[in-house]
Amino acid sequence: MTRILLLNPNTSTDVTDLLVQAASPFLSAGSTLIPVTAPRGVPYIATRAEAAIASGIVLDVLAEREGTFDVAIVAAFGDPGLGGARELMPVPVIGLAEAAMLSACMLGQRFSIVSFSRALGPWFRECVAIHGLLDRLASIRLLDGPFASLANVQDEKEGLLIELARRAIEDDGADAIILAGAPLAGLAARVRDRIPVPVVESVVAAVKQAELLVILNSKKASAGSFRRPDPKPSIGLSPALERSLLAGTSPASQRHEKLS
Amino acid sequence: MTRILLLNPNTSTDVTDLLVQAASPFLSAGSTLIPVTAPRGVPYIATRAEAAIASGIVLDVLAEREGTFDVAIVAAFGDPGLGGARELMPVPVIGLAEAAMLSACMLGQRFSIVSFSRALGPWFRECVAIHGLLDRLASIRLLDGPFASLANVQDEKEGLLIELARRAIEDDGADAIILAGAPLAGLAARVRDRIPVPVVESVVAAVKQAELLVILNSKKASAGSFRRPDPKPSIGLSPALERSLLAGTSPASQRHEKLS
Amino acid sequence: MTRILLLNPNTSTDVTDLLVQAASPFLSAGSTLIPVTAPRGVPYIATRAEAAIASGIVLDVLAEREGTFDVAIVAAFGDPGLGGARELMPVPVIGLAEAAMLSACMLGQRFSIVSFSRALGPWFRECVAIHGLLDRLASIRLLDGPFASLANVQDEKEGLLIELARRAIEDDGADAIILAGAPLAGLAARVRDRIPVPVVESVVAAVKQAELLVILNSKKASAGSFRRPDPKPSIGLSPALERSLLAGTSPASQRHEKLS
Amino acid sequence: MTRILLLNPNTSTDVTDLLVQAASPFLSAGSTLIPVTAPRGVPYIATRAEAAIASGIVLDVLAEREGTFDVAIVAAFGDPGLGGARELMPVPVIGLAEAAMLSACMLGQRFSIVSFSRALGPWFRECVAIHGLLDRLASIRLLDGPFASLANVQDEKEGLLIELARRAIEDDGADAIILAGAPLAGLAARVRDRIPVPVVESVVAAVKQAELLVILNSKKASAGSFRRPDPKPSIGLSPALERSLLAGTSPASQRHEKLS
Amino acid sequence: MTRILLLNPNTSTDVTDLLVQAASPFLSAGSTLIPVTAPRGVPYIATRAEAAIASGIVLDVLAEREGTFDVAIVAAFGDPGLGGARELMPVPVIGLAEAAMLSACMLGQRFSIVSFSRALGPWFRECVAIHGLLDRLASIRLLDGPFASLANVQDEKEGLLIELARRAIEDDGADAIILAGAPLAGLAARVRDRIPVPVVESVVAAVKQAELLVILNSKKASAGSFRRPDPKPSIGLSPALERSLLAGTSPASQRHEKLS
Amino acid sequence: MTRILLLNPNTSTDVTDLLVQAASPFLSAGSTLIPVTAPRGVPYIATRAEAAIASGIVLDVLAEREGTFDVAIVAAFGDPGLGGARELMPVPVIGLAEAAMLSACMLGQRFSIVSFSRALGPWFRECVAIHGLLDRLASIRLLDGPFASLANVQDEKEGLLIELARRAIEDDGADAIILAGAPLAGLAARVRDRIPVPVVESVVAAVKQAELLVILNSKKASAGSFRRPDPKPSIGLSPALERSLLAGTSPASQRHEKLS
Repeated sequence: MTRILLLNPNTSTDVTDLLVQAASPFLSAGSTLIPVTAPRGVPYIATRAEAAIASGIVLDVLAEREGTFDVAIVAAFGDPGLGGARELMPVPVIGLAEAAMLSACMLGQRFSIVSFSRALGPWFRECVAIHGLLDRLASIRLLDGPFASLANVQDEKEGLLIELARRAIEDDGADAIILAGAPLAGLAARVRDRIPVPVVESVVAAVKQAELLVILNSKKASAGSFRRPDPKPSIGLSPALERSLLAGTSPASQRHEKLS
Repeated sequence: MTRILLLNPNTSTDVTDLLVQAASPFLSAGSTLIPVTAPRGVPYIATRAEAAIASGIVLDVLAEREGTFDVAIVAAFGDPGLGGARELMPVPVIGLAEAAMLSACMLGQRFSIVSFSRALGPWFRECVAIHGLLDRLASIRLLDGPFASLANVQDEKEGLLIELARRAIEDDGADAIILAGAPLAGLAARVRDRIPVPVVESVVAAVKQAELLVILNSKKASAGSFRRPDPKPSIGLSPALERSLLAGTSPASQRHEKLS
Repeated sequence: MTRILLLNPNTSTDVTDLLVQAASPFLSAGSTLIPVTAPRGVPYIATRAEAAIASGIVLDVLAEREGTFDVAIVAAFGDPGLGGARELMPVPVIGLAEAAMLSACMLGQRFSIVSFSRALGPWFRECVAIHGLLDRLASIRLLDGPFASLANVQDEKEGLLIELARRAIEDDGADAIILAGAPLAGLAARVRDRIPVPVVESVVAAVKQAELLVILNSKKASAGSFRRPDPKPSIGLSPALERSLLAGTSPASQRHEKLS
Repeated sequence: MTRILLLNPNTSTDVTDLLVQAASPFLSAGSTLIPVTAPRGVPYIATRAEAAIASGIVLDVLAEREGTFDVAIVAAFGDPGLGGARELMPVPVIGLAEAAMLSACMLGQRFSIVSFSRALGPWFRECVAIHGLLDRLASIRLLDGPFASLANVQDEKEGLLIELARRAIEDDGADAIILAGAPLAGLAARVRDRIPVPVVESVVAAVKQAELLVILNSKKASAGSFRRPDPKPSIGLSPALERSLLAGTSPASQRHEKLS
Repeated sequence: MTRILLLNPNTSTDVTDLLVQAASPFLSAGSTLIPVTAPRGVPYIATRAEAAIASGIVLDVLAEREGTFDVAIVAAFGDPGLGGARELMPVPVIGLAEAAMLSACMLGQRFSIVSFSRALGPWFRECVAIHGLLDRLASIRLLDGPFASLANVQDEKEGLLIELARRAIEDDGADAIILAGAPLAGLAARVRDRIPVPVVESVVAAVKQAELLVILNSKKASAGSFRRPDPKPSIGLSPALERSLLAGTSPASQRHEKLS
Repeated sequence: MTRILLLNPNTSTDVTDLLVQAASPFLSAGSTLIPVTAPRGVPYIATRAEAAIASGIVLDVLAEREGTFDVAIVAAFGDPGLGGARELMPVPVIGLAEAAMLSACMLGQRFSIVSFSRALGPWFRECVAIHGLLDRLASIRLLDGPFASLANVQDEKEGLLIELARRAIEDDGADAIILAGAPLAGLAARVRDRIPVPVVESVVAAVKQAELLVILNSKKASAGSFRRPDPKPSIGLSPALERSLLAGTSPASQRHEKLS
C-alpha cells in the first residue's frame, strides 16, 4: 500500500478537489491519495512573496504528518518549499512543476508552460531555472486579464488556453505543452484533441512519478546535500516542525557516514 | 494491457536477460515486457562510432515491429537513435539514460553516473548534453581497466563501483547515483545499502517511466519537431524501414494542422 | 536621515550584535541602523529547509515594520525571502550575499566564498545560481568539522579560514574573497593583511549598498516582476502580513499602468 | 597529392554534382576530389530519423574506402555520423556544417543559417548545439512551403532565400550568413552581391578546411576521446565496417600510451 | 578625503560636464571629483574599434595621474580598458557600465539597457558578456536614427527613450532600466516618474560604488589575476605608461607571495 | 597573389622571426607573407593591461598599411584588437588564438591550451570566452616559473610543455592540444610525435585560415556589427588611424543599405 500525500499549498479546497478528481482515475491499485489543503496562506500562490510564505507552511504540514505517508507531492506549480522538504522528510517528496516538466522532457526536446495569469510568469521562470531546465523550455505563455473564479478558470479560459498552446507550438517551437497551475487540473484530458502535441496533465504526472519513486525504493540519503540536516533547536515554530528539526541526523552517525 | 518493447541495441542476449530480470519484478499488473536483442551490431556499444551504427539499427527494429507495442525503451545507456525513433514511431519511445537521469533529478539536485569502462565517458557525456542536463550532472566516474565478461562485469567490479559511487558523493557532490550501462542492470538493488544516497536502477526507471507515458495517454504529435516526418522514398533500406519512412505525415494533413 | 533595517533572519542575538559592530563604523552621517533579530526560527540558518522556514518569517517581520525604514537588509548569507520581500515592500530590500557578491565583482573577475561549515554549501550554491552569478564564482570553500559556538566561531577558525582563502586564490583562481555568513561579521577587517587579494566584509558591503539604493532614489516598481503583487486575501497569517498582502497594487491602477 | 573524399550522405547524385561543381574551382593544385554518393538512404536528409539512418551508412562507406583518401568530408549540413567517423578513421574527417560554421566565426561574432525547408530546423539546431556553437548562432531561418525539385530548389527559391538572409541580418543581428544544405551548393557565389554581409559557401569552406587539416599534418589521436576505439567484434554489419571495428587500437598498445 | 578620478574616455568636454553635473549632488561629504577628459581619441566611443583605441588611452591617463586619486571611474558605458586598469593601478577602478549594471541587479531580476544609437549595440552586448551578466539582461534597446548633437541628445530624444524603456518593461520583462551612455548623464532624474520601474543613473551609481570600494578598504591584490603585473620594459609608450609597466610587482616579491 | 600581413603585436623581432619561419613552408604558391613587428608596446604581451595597450597599436599599424594586404593576422595568442580591426579594415582580419582554436575544433571535441607562463592564464581565458568557445575548452595549462629568453623559451621548456600537454590529455580530457603564444611558433612540428593527440601549430593554422578567407572571397560587410563604422573625427591619433576612422561608411550609403 502506497500512501501518497497530496499537499495543496494553496488554501482553496476547490483546487484540492480538482487535483483529486484529475489524479484519482490514474492511481495504481495499491495507492491511496491523502489530500491535504494548506491550513494557512493564500487561496492561490502566484508570486515570489506568496511562495516564500507557502514554503514554511509546506514544511509545517509535512512535519506534522511525518510517518503517515510514503511519498509526498507539493501540488502547486512552482514547487514552494520542495528542496527543504526533500531534506527534512525521510521519504521522497516531489513537486507538481518538477513532475510535469521531467515527464514532458520524455515527449519532446522543448516544452512550453501555458497558464491563466500573467502574474505567474516570474515565479514559474525561476522554478524552471532552479530545476536546471531552461534549455528544455520553449516558452512560458500566460493569459493577460482577470478571471471570475479559481474553481472555474479552466472552463472560462479553455478556448484562450488552447489558442495559447497552439501559438507556443507554432511560434516558440514547443514539442509538448504543460497546462500549469493546480486550478487547471483535469483540463489536459478535455483539450488534448485540440492541441497537436502531447499535453502533460501535471497532477497525473506527479502521482505516477510519486509511485515510481516508491517503487525505485531509493533509501533516504544519509550523505550528500539532501541528507537530513543536523539536529537543530528552534524557537517559535510549530511543535511538529520543531520536533522535525531536532530529529536530524545526529552528527555522530553522520561522521560515521563520512567517506574516506 | 500495456506492451512495452524493451529493445537492447547491443547484440548480447546475456545483457538482454539481465535487463529483463532486473525489470520484471517491477512491472505493473497490466504490463508485458517484449524483450528484443539487436540482430546486428556490437556486443556492447561504447563509442560514438558504435552508437552511430546502432542508431539506424534501432530504427530498423522498431519499424519492423511497429504496431506490436504501446511504448518502446531504447535500452542502452547513451540512448542511440532515440530522437529519430521518437519522430518515427506513433507511440512513445524513451531511452535508458533519459529515464534514469530524469528519475534521478527527483531525488536530488545533482547526480553522478558511475560505470565500468572508461571508454564510455565521451559518449555518455554527449548524451547528458543532448538531454540538456549538464547542470544536473555532478560527475561521470568510470573504472579504468579490463573486465572478464560483460555478463559478469557487475559481480567482478562490485566493490570498485561502490567505491567510485562514494567518491562521487564525497568529492563531486552527487545527491544520487546512476549505475549506468545495461550490463549493470540489477546491481543497484544489491548495493543500495552500501551507498549513502539514492541509487537509480536504470531499467526499472525506464519501465516505470514507459508505463507513465502510456497512462498520460499523450497523443502522437502532429505538429512540432517530433511529428512524424513527411513521407520520403528511400533506397537500400530494410523493407520495414522503407515502409515506415513512406508512411509519414502526408504534407496535406500537415498543412491542415498548420496553426494560424 | 536614512533608516536601515538590518534584519538578522537567525534567532541568535549574538550574531545580530556581531553584524551591528562590524557595520556601525561605516555608516554614513545621515544613516541609522535598526537591528532586528528574527523572533522565530533557528539560531543559524544552514540548509534549504531552514531557509524555507526563514523566508516567511522575513516577510512577516518586514510587514510588521513597514513604514519604519527606508531600506532593508536581509542579513543572512543566502538571502532567505529576498525576492518576495522585494516584491512586497515599498522600499528597496537587499540581501547580505547579494551585496557581498556584487561588490566583489568590482574587485576582480571571480570571487570565492569561504565559510565555516560544510553544511552551508548547497544553500550557498543555489543562492549564487539564483543571482545568476555562477560565471563569476571561482569556488565555495568550507571548513569541515564542528565548532564550539556561533558567537566565537570566527576566532576559533581564523587560521583555518585564512588557509582556505589562500587555497581559493592559488588553486581556484579567486580574485576576491567573501568571508560568508553573518557569524563571520567583522572578521574581514582583522585578517585582510594575511590574504593577498581584496576581502569583502559582507555586512559593510550591504549597508553601503543599502545607502546607495536610497541615494539612487529609485522609485518602487509599479510594473515588471517586482511591482507590488495584486491584493490578495489570506488566512492564518500574522495580522501584519495579512495586511501587507491585502495592500497590493489594486488591479485598477495596474491596468492603468499597462503599456501599449 | 591530397585525396579528398567528398561523401554526400544523401542518395541524390544531382546533389553530389552540385557539390562538386561548387567546390572544384577552389581546389588547390595538389588536391583531388573523390565524390561519393550514399548508396543507401534517402534523397535528402531532413530529420533526426533520417540522420540516424545516415550515420551508420556514412561509417560504412568510409570503412569501405579506408586507405584511398587523406581526408574526408561528410557533406550534409547536420554532419551525420561525424563523431563516429572521426573516431574510426585514421585520417581527418570534417562535416559540412562544422566547416561552414567555424569559417563563419572568423567573419563576425554571430552567424545565421538560412535554408529552404522548415523541416530542417530541429536537426540543424541540434547540430549547432553538438558543436557547442549556440552562442555564435544569431538565428536559423527557414522557408516554409514545398519546392519542385532538390536539384533546382536553389534557383526556385533564390529570391526568398536572399530575403530571409536580409531579415537575419536586420532582425537577428547576423554578421555572416550560411546558406545551408547540400542542395544550395553554389548559390552563395551567385547571391553574394545582394546580401550585405559575408556569405559562406559551405562546400568550399569544407574543401579548404580539409586541405588545411592535411597541411597541419596532425597525427591520428592515439589517446583522448577520438583515438581509434578498442577492437570489437560485430555481427551483421558490412564486411568493411566489421573489419574497421576489429582493427581498433589494440588494448596493449593503448596501455602503452597510458600516461603516468 | 576620497579623491575620485572621473575619467571620460571620450574627448568631448560637454559630456564630461554632463557627468560632473549629474554626479556632483550625490557626492559624500568627504569626496572630491577630479574630472578628466581623454586628451586623444574620438568624441564619443561607439564601436569595438573606438573602444580598442580608447583602452590604451585610458591606461595612459591613469598612469600619468597615478598617486593623485583614491579610486577611478572609467566613465564610458562599455568600460574600455577596465580590466587592464584594474591590474595596473594600486587603487580600485570601476566602469560606468559595471557600476550601473551591478546596481540594477539589486533592483530586480533583469535589467534593460536603453540608449540613443543603434551603433552601440554590439559593443554594449560584449560588455555585458565580459561582466558575466547576460543572464540578468532583459534586452538592449536602441534608437535608430541620427541626432543633432551629443550634448543635447538626451533632450532631443527624451520622449523616444521613455517609449523604448516602456517597451523593454512590457515586452522584454525588464525589472529595471539603465539609460546608458555618458551623454545621457542626468536624464534618469528627469524621466524617472514616467518609467514604471527603477531607473539607474549610471554616473551616480559609479560614484557611489567608487566611494563604497574605498570604504571597504580592500587592499590591492598581490596575488590572483589582478595583482600588478610583473615589471616589463616597453618602447614607444608615454613616459608615464612606461614607468607604470616597469613598476610592476617584482618577481621576487611575487614568489614570496606564492602560497603553499 | 594573396598578400598576408602577419602583424606581431609584440615588439620582439625574434618572435616575428619565429612566426615567419614556422609559417613560411606552408604558404600556398600564390601567397606572400608581409611580416610586421609592432613599433611600440612590450616585448611580449601577457596581461590585460598589455593587451589593452596593444589593441590600439594593432589598429594603428593596420590603418597605416591599409591597401597593401589582402588579409591580416593579429599574431599574438589573445588576439588584441581583433574585433576593432575586423570592423575597420576592408579585408578579413583573423587572430592567432581564433585560428588555432577553430582549427582544433575540427580535430576533437575539446582542446587544451598549453603555454609557458602562468601570467598568461587570465588573458587567455577571457580570449576563449570572447570567442564563445568555453564549451570546447578542456583546460588551460601553464608552466610556473621563470624562463631565460623569449626567443629560446620553446627549447628551454620543451620537455615540461610536453609533460603539460600529456596531463591535459589524461586528466582534463583534451582531444587536441594548442601550444599557445607566438614564442612557441614552430614547436608543434618538433614535439608532435611525443604528444598522443593532434597538436595545432597556431601560426600555420592562421596563415591557412587567412588564405581560406580570401578564397571564400567574402565581401566586406556593409551591414551587421562588422560593417565599417560611421565616419568619425578624432584628435591626437596617428594620421593613418585618423584617416581610417574618417573613411567609415557614410551614413547615406548606410541608409541605402537599411533593409526593409
